[in-house]
Amino acid sequence: MSDTMTTHVKETSGLIASDKVEGTAVYSHSGERLGTIANFMVNKLTGQVSYAVMSFGGFLGMGNKYHPLPWKTLTYDQERGGYVVDVTPEQLESAPAYSDDDLPNWTNPSYRAGIDDYYSRMPPL
Amino acid sequence: MSDTMTTHVKETSGLIASDKVEGTAVYSHSGERLGTIANFMVNKLTGQVSYAVMSFGGFLGMGNKYHPLPWKTLTYDQERGGYVVDVTPEQLESAPAYSDDDLPNWTNPSYRAGIDDYYSRMPPL
Repeated sequence: MSDTMTTHVKETSGLIASDKVEGTAVYSHSGERLGTIANFMVNKLTGQVSYAVMSFGGFLGMGNKYHPLPWKTLTYDQERGGYVVDVTPEQLESAPAYSDDDLPNWTNPSYRAGIDDYYSRMPPL
Repeated sequence: MSDTMTTHVKETSGLIASDKVEGTAVYSHSGERLGTIANFMVNKLTGQVSYAVMSFGGFLGMGNKYHPLPWKTLTYDQERGGYVVDVTPEQLESAPAYSDDDLPNWTNPSYRAGIDDYYSRMPPL
């Protein structure tokens, strides 16, 4: 009951609390459930989300894989209550990703450039 | 050690992970520590942070008070590693706030309008 109430007040059609983004579903264009949001990477100066990190897979919580997705590849789908990502599962497979044992260095500009570059080179679906 | 590492990889000069915003310090213009960020309220469609919720006070974790601050009232201070808010402690005192027992209804447009209105009526410092 208390949990339901918290969700109710913290997630509206327009706003979501930063501590509630985890678990939001991510779908492909064809409606396949690809994974869930692990967190957002927010620009501290502008307040704009730069990347949504999608987690998927893992067996019994082990072996999670994380895909940082540039914000512009995502569209929020009000009906589904989740994000639709403008890439195919095949494109995701070769996209930049990391695991819990191998966290990226976000301070390294070339790490971010690699992500941006990968997605900018993709043909629109 | 593990904690330090996590902070290192998740918080850079430019980006902060949404699950790491909690606890970021908020200062007044005169350098007084007013409180800490409890969470960000993010527009799900645009990915722009609309409000930063500042928590302060409370005795042994009881009686926390929360102030939703429009994003535009905040400036990130790289040196301090925290946000500076464009209001005086006196102005905050009469600003919209809520407690754990009295969570706001973010779905109500007039709730947000009340916050926006309060801060738009304030003279610049």
